[in-house]
Amino acid sequence: MDKEVKIAVLGLGVVANGLVENLTAAKEKIKQQTGLTFSIAKVLVRSKENKKKQAEKHQLVLTTEFDEILEDSDIAIVVELIGGIHPAKEWIAQALQHKKHVVTANKDLIAQFGNELTAIAEENNVSLFYEASVAGGIPILQTLNSSFIADEITEIQGILNGTTNFMLTQMTEAEISYDEVLKTAQSAGFAESDPTNDVDGWDAAYKLMILVRLAFSKDLSLNDVQIKGIREITQTDIFYAQKFGYQIKLLAQAEKVSGEIYAAVSPVLISQTHPLALVKNEMNAVFIESEAIGSSMLYGPGAGASPTAASVVTDILKIAQNMIDSSQALQMSTSDLPSCKIHEEMTSSYYLLLSDCKVDLPAFLEKQQITPVFFKQQPKNTGAAFITNQLTVEQKNSLLEQLQQVSHIKQILSVWGK
Amino acid sequence: MDKEVKIAVLGLGVVANGLVENLTAAKEKIKQQTGLTFSIAKVLVRSKENKKKQAEKHQLVLTTEFDEILEDSDIAIVVELIGGIHPAKEWIAQALQHKKHVVTANKDLIAQFGNELTAIAEENNVSLFYEASVAGGIPILQTLNSSFIADEITEIQGILNGTTNFMLTQMTEAEISYDEVLKTAQSAGFAESDPTNDVDGWDAAYKLMILVRLAFSKDLSLNDVQIKGIREITQTDIFYAQKFGYQIKLLAQAEKVSGEIYAAVSPVLISQTHPLALVKNEMNAVFIESEAIGSSMLYGPGAGASPTAASVVTDILKIAQNMIDSSQALQMSTSDLPSCKIHEEMTSSYYLLLSDCKVDLPAFLEKQQITPVFFKQQPKNTGAAFITNQLTVEQKNSLLEQLQQVSHIKQILSVWGK
Repeated sequence: MDKEVKIAVLGLGVVANGLVENLTAAKEKIKQQTGLTFSIAKVLVRSKENKKKQAEKHQLVLTTEFDEILEDSDIAIVVELIGGIHPAKEWIAQALQHKKHVVTANKDLIAQFGNELTAIAEENNVSLFYEASVAGGIPILQTLNSSFIADEITEIQGILNGTTNFMLTQMTEAEISYDEVLKTAQSAGFAESDPTNDVDGWDAAYKLMILVRLAFSKDLSLNDVQIKGIREITQTDIFYAQKFGYQIKLLAQAEKVSGEIYAAVSPVLISQTHPLALVKNEMNAVFIESEAIGSSMLYGPGAGASPTAASVVTDILKIAQNMIDSSQALQMSTSDLPSCKIHEEMTSSYYLLLSDCKVDLPAFLEKQQITPVFFKQQPKNTGAAFITNQLTVEQKNSLLEQLQQVSHIKQILSVWGK
Repeated sequence: MDKEVKIAVLGLGVVANGLVENLTAAKEKIKQQTGLTFSIAKVLVRSKENKKKQAEKHQLVLTTEFDEILEDSDIAIVVELIGGIHPAKEWIAQALQHKKHVVTANKDLIAQFGNELTAIAEENNVSLFYEASVAGGIPILQTLNSSFIADEITEIQGILNGTTNFMLTQMTEAEISYDEVLKTAQSAGFAESDPTNDVDGWDAAYKLMILVRLAFSKDLSLNDVQIKGIREITQTDIFYAQKFGYQIKLLAQAEKVSGEIYAAVSPVLISQTHPLALVKNEMNAVFIESEAIGSSMLYGPGAGASPTAASVVTDILKIAQNMIDSSQALQMSTSDLPSCKIHEEMTSSYYLLLSDCKVDLPAFLEKQQITPVFFKQQPKNTGAAFITNQLTVEQKNSLLEQLQQVSHIKQILSVWGK
């Protein structure tokens, strides 16, 4: 089955460059293993002049008009790598309506408009694939779609944002402050000048929405994710977490609780003996609990031109092979998923950091029927850090109320894991 | 595409039972997501009487005659779960010749006769799939075949044997001896009464052969794997490894070195900060280095009825979907792979444990131009443990020769990682 598949790429930034290089380098290997030849027919850019050198290097045909791609009937697959919502959404919709398969790495778009766009793909019997939108180089979406079809996922957790994981790792290992590490990450081009999307947890929440769609066949709305970022994490928190045997990580988690889904993105304490604790710097990982397989984890780079491009290529190959074998287009998920019923409150143990404590804290906690698992009080008895036993939300709220009367609560974080 | 696919299962042991239960439990979900219905048409057993209860529970049709399966033209897929080489090999060959797809979890068989059996599958345009043969519930083979098609793998490492990993973990955490933990593992039915296959590294070597086939498209012969088991590992070794910041793990590894492949199964020291160090007890993991993606890892249960059955179901689903979509049968690898050129010798740093040391060891090592990275000498100066800098094989041999003249070398292990 020797076939040539023509691709158009929207955008010529770092990932698009990675894609061009990867497809060029792997051309022979792909042909040998699949019988397919891929060629990039057109690349949409804002200005031909700015991208002239890159175009010459890889003999790319540039265009500034999306319509030229839309109307080129030889182009079977459109790869969207411009990011953002507009005009990416409109272009993807039009490409699908013109019976072109679409591959995208655009998590914001897929999280918010994935169902709508998938519906257009279904109507037109073409595929919309987006492996690279979650956890860059990790093939998590295709794994959810293949290895877990006959299984039942009960929990999924991810370290999904490389920027915050880099920051927390550096705060731990290089012992530098949040502000310092943010500057380092920004000057290395690793964090945006406005870091909101990363540090406040929005990026991880978008990715969690996509994971939930594939893991639970449910539609999770952004409003239903309890989101807390890492701005308030200090070196003192990291110091005590380590002393107690934990790492602080920004964890995205979704868990089935009696037919409902609990969904949250928040900094949590993870035991140093759990595989997620060793996911460092810009690496990502997704941890899954399921009925048949039990515990499993996929680990890999969360971003970067080359790993992201590798995931895009995997999508392209899958679409192309299906194009040849089948008249029915594949989708990553269906467009008509039922909404999640949301479980708001979880039992958890908590890490607490106090200052200005006016009482004998161990005696006070005993009175509140709290049995701290770990406990450290500073010499002069006004500051303390401890980890509670498992508390219901009611118990936690009652504890906080009591503590506020006798001390200043500087930090409270969930401890993840049973 | 509503289709019913009939399956025959050879054997009705724990994995087969897991398969029956998994397929029954997931029937509706599979149908909904793929349009396919699977039914187990016949199960081959040695004695119908012994399996009567199980058969009644799941309404299974038992047979003691393989020919009844072979000649049942409704049966599209045969799942081999009896293990061992004979008669599994002959039955798989016959099933393939009768145009039936085959799924197996039989690593010994696939490692040794995978090419031969794949050739028969290719000739008959049916599939031979064996996801469950390596690392039980981890979808490592399909990931190698999909996510890495356009990538170039340079190294692959695995903790592939659950029994030895359980033993080493218990020796580390419960501080019990090799002999004690072996007895525990045996009485829990976790290790065989003759543990050779696990503790001497053969099981991991077979799995490595299969991994190499998919990761490097090369045929690795068992004779070309440098195999060393865990029988000689003592608690003293584990004590020092931990003191130096390492875990001892039985690691299967294959690495490209200037066009050749270095392949080994041996107990090595892995840094406690590497994700492989947290793979505990019966869990397995495969770590991959590749050009495009960089570092990635898959982690999950290495054995057990339910995870293994889940991998078998993944194979069954893939074969069935391909049956419907395409006239060309898929294979996990081709039968005509070129042989590996073997790279025998690797630069490495080493952990050494000495007794009866008759010299001032630091001075002695300095004279040998060895700069130990970690060093511990016992008070009375006759025993010592240390980790060397990176040594070529020549340098290592020269060091050992010199050390033998002044001390007793109780242990030498490679330290894995750069």
